[in-house]
Amino acid sequence: MFLFHIKYRFIAEESTAAGSKCVLTDSPTWIIDPVDGTCNFVHRFPTVAVSIGFAVNKELEFGVIYHCTEERLYTGRRGQGAFCNDKRLQVSKETDISKALILTEIGPKRDPATLKLFLGNIERLLKAHAHGVRVIGSSTLALCHLASGAADAYYQFGLHCWDLAAATVIIREAGGTVIDTSGGPLDLMSCRVIAAGTREMAMFIAQEIQTIHYRRDDEN
Amino acid sequence: MFLFHIKYRFIAEESTAAGSKCVLTDSPTWIIDPVDGTCNFVHRFPTVAVSIGFAVNKELEFGVIYHCTEERLYTGRRGQGAFCNDKRLQVSKETDISKALILTEIGPKRDPATLKLFLGNIERLLKAHAHGVRVIGSSTLALCHLASGAADAYYQFGLHCWDLAAATVIIREAGGTVIDTSGGPLDLMSCRVIAAGTREMAMFIAQEIQTIHYRRDDEN
Repeated sequence: MFLFHIKYRFIAEESTAAGSKCVLTDSPTWIIDPVDGTCNFVHRFPTVAVSIGFAVNKELEFGVIYHCTEERLYTGRRGQGAFCNDKRLQVSKETDISKALILTEIGPKRDPATLKLFLGNIERLLKAHAHGVRVIGSSTLALCHLASGAADAYYQFGLHCWDLAAATVIIREAGGTVIDTSGGPLDLMSCRVIAAGTREMAMFIAQEIQTIHYRRDDEN
Repeated sequence: MFLFHIKYRFIAEESTAAGSKCVLTDSPTWIIDPVDGTCNFVHRFPTVAVSIGFAVNKELEFGVIYHCTEERLYTGRRGQGAFCNDKRLQVSKETDISKALILTEIGPKRDPATLKLFLGNIERLLKAHAHGVRVIGSSTLALCHLASGAADAYYQFGLHCWDLAAATVIIREAGGTVIDTSGGPLDLMSCRVIAAGTREMAMFIAQEIQTIHYRRDDEN
């Protein structure tokens, strides 16, 4: 009889808030947000999720997101597709901004300069004739809408790796693109992201929006 | 045997779009939006409702709103309370902006001056330390969230009487306030509204936001 002792690491919003350092290593790591949409949760606004991602060698392997009030379970596993309550997910194939529904979130910083940049980005996209912009208060569920094809793009500055880990697997397995706001590869710890159904849409957003600076998740 | 012939009038988004004049008279009038959240509907973004209001002598008598994807039925009848799937609705009692979740919508006009005012209003509320601002793409369902106490205030310029008629009865019957953006009494045909759980919150919003001019529903 063999007993395997696998040492798992955990990165979770609540433990980080309690002072734990937040570094992604090669170890098998659970990346967890027990309550995504905390402000919504406080107000009983029914857009709240649990997000659980799993990475090995810094590669995201699978993700599970549960939309608590609508009883929808989103799952994705690398190479195995993405599903919502067993229905296969497929992103939108839209490349035209004038037909695009775009999601974003305000982010935690509310100083005047940050607000100016945040609102300026929405203004740029609406001036570029984006069909609509939505702010629903849960990064994770916004990314699930993207994975299901109900939105065409999502971008945010100031979100965390636990908002993004599970959703990134799900979106990629649904055929979508998840990149850095610069247009380069995603850096899970960089606190910024663009996700879209198509690479063209993601790159369009990358060119339009201005950077809002946030400290990385793995900075002291 | 008596036969009563009651002549009902109808005001509905689709008939108005087809060129019918939109005037509220003393006649018993159905005020209907068959699909509220049209942009969401086009994208299969699951925040879409049917809204049916009924007015007599220009007084709103009852309202029925159906959240199509979540199978929630909101109802309100003057003097009889408001309900969601038979559960009684009660608005929030919040008066402090720093604890308030505020909902708004972009509105149909997207010219630079209108966008500046729309985004300027969000900026003013966030600078006043509003806890959060959401844009969900359905005026009617935003107003239902307000009626259920999941949000503390809602304001919009550029919505129509059919977005507002049913929800106004439901919010008032849930204990809430529905007023004009000037702080005065609601004018159903004026294409602008503030709704809140408390009168204090509604008046605070009225003082903070800048007016965005839209043509009235009953203008030629």
